[in-house]
Amino acid sequence: MFDSIIIGTGAAGISAALTLKQLNKNFLIIGPKNLSFKINTAEKIRNYPGLSSVSGKEMKEAFAKQLNDMGIEILDKQVTGVYDLGDHYAVLCGQDSYEAQTIVLGLGVETVKPIKGEIELLGQGVSYCATCDGFLYKGKEITVVSSSKEFEGEVEYLAQLAAKVNFIPLYKDVELNLGNVCTFKGMPKEIKKENKRMLLALNDTNIESDGVFMLKASISPSVLVPGLEDKDGHILVDRLCATNLKGVFAAGDCTGRPYQYAKAVGEGNVAAHSVNHYLQELKKNK
Amino acid sequence: MFDSIIIGTGAAGISAALTLKQLNKNFLIIGPKNLSFKINTAEKIRNYPGLSSVSGKEMKEAFAKQLNDMGIEILDKQVTGVYDLGDHYAVLCGQDSYEAQTIVLGLGVETVKPIKGEIELLGQGVSYCATCDGFLYKGKEITVVSSSKEFEGEVEYLAQLAAKVNFIPLYKDVELNLGNVCTFKGMPKEIKKENKRMLLALNDTNIESDGVFMLKASISPSVLVPGLEDKDGHILVDRLCATNLKGVFAAGDCTGRPYQYAKAVGEGNVAAHSVNHYLQELKKNK
Repeated sequence: MFDSIIIGTGAAGISAALTLKQLNKNFLIIGPKNLSFKINTAEKIRNYPGLSSVSGKEMKEAFAKQLNDMGIEILDKQVTGVYDLGDHYAVLCGQDSYEAQTIVLGLGVETVKPIKGEIELLGQGVSYCATCDGFLYKGKEITVVSSSKEFEGEVEYLAQLAAKVNFIPLYKDVELNLGNVCTFKGMPKEIKKENKRMLLALNDTNIESDGVFMLKASISPSVLVPGLEDKDGHILVDRLCATNLKGVFAAGDCTGRPYQYAKAVGEGNVAAHSVNHYLQELKKNK
Repeated sequence: MFDSIIIGTGAAGISAALTLKQLNKNFLIIGPKNLSFKINTAEKIRNYPGLSSVSGKEMKEAFAKQLNDMGIEILDKQVTGVYDLGDHYAVLCGQDSYEAQTIVLGLGVETVKPIKGEIELLGQGVSYCATCDGFLYKGKEITVVSSSKEFEGEVEYLAQLAAKVNFIPLYKDVELNLGNVCTFKGMPKEIKKENKRMLLALNDTNIESDGVFMLKASISPSVLVPGLEDKDGHILVDRLCATNLKGVFAAGDCTGRPYQYAKAVGEGNVAAHSVNHYLQELKKNK
């Protein structure tokens, strides 16, 4: 059992990890090893104290070096759910499960809102995770909606498994060119299930398939963590980054504006100290 | 009239300044040009994201370079009071006064608590500011309590003006050696005024003089800003760093624990965005 599991490798998650390490805690940090995709694509950042006018790439490299210096390794997986087990939490990454006494959510902010039917059919034909559920659709027909170029690797993976992929990219400059991938343009409106087939409403037609993958950088917090209180897509936290669930803290863009590196880094630090305080109180009350 | 005046040149004040500059605001930042004394004395800092294992001095240099790169100049003065003028604020630095629509307090945390009589006699024989009030004691006898080595320059300045200085350093390694300075050891307990003479209770005796200077890095927030709500020495703020006074925001150690650079930098950023939002609303309502 870990003291804490940090979900997310953006500025908030990294800040929390550095401080938990300094506080000598036993923790996991789970997320893309290549760090937050947003950091990679950021242009010049001039107002982050200590790094004078850096590109997102340079900031990412500084973060990666520091994690390495501190001996912190990222577990490169996609978290599919966080479940309350009474006095601790289970974090699921597809088939794998990890347990911890506290959770730090550094999820970033969801820019793609769920469409009608998406949340309701999750796990019943709709999936957020190619590597978790791809094998279910071997030799079948699937529909893949992708919010960003960063998921092209996952689309390729799915195309290797499935017989046919209906691909709906929500971004420009698509570089995929595979024989069994048919690309559609438009904004998906709704997902329905009829006679075990999934129907995705796009423009004026329905795209029919056996399963729908919605690939996006961040999943709605309350979908990922059942029972978590949010408002307008942001997790509700207090000044100490505590959420409504005991032992669950949140930091960075997922708690609200301003969407800034300095703010994320500050909250990651506060969340780590709150984890430490929570663990101390837990020990006292045993 | 400035859009904003930032008080304090620690991590919070600097972060607020960088962001206000980026937001193209017209502001002043007032405090020691040599930045926060605490930064200078910090040992290795390992958990500030982006700067891998730096000394306080290295961090200070990175901050100073960035201020310079962004064309931000520090006004090296001591703020003696902030006063509400109805729809804006006046910031006093001894004889000088500056006006702004908003205030960002990055005061740091007061480590030396006021002693009995100190707040009550402020301006009536007790002063916090050598350069503001020193001239009042030309040729007279004064008592100077100093919380830190950083004020030795101010003690020397006072010793040049006054006929005699009773000096009570609250730190080790005192390097002052002046003819008219008599050094005492001990913790001051109380200040009283009797027949226009000031009595400072130290150990079992009273040190008598014409005026008492209490030199310390940060002044109690509610003394500096009348009407400001605080609790246990910390300024009360919400998640957007707003205090109970409209247009006054606070960031960093002065708002509470954890006393960490990352937290201060995050709140400085949030406070700057709140200033921007406040100014936008002000414009709308005109």
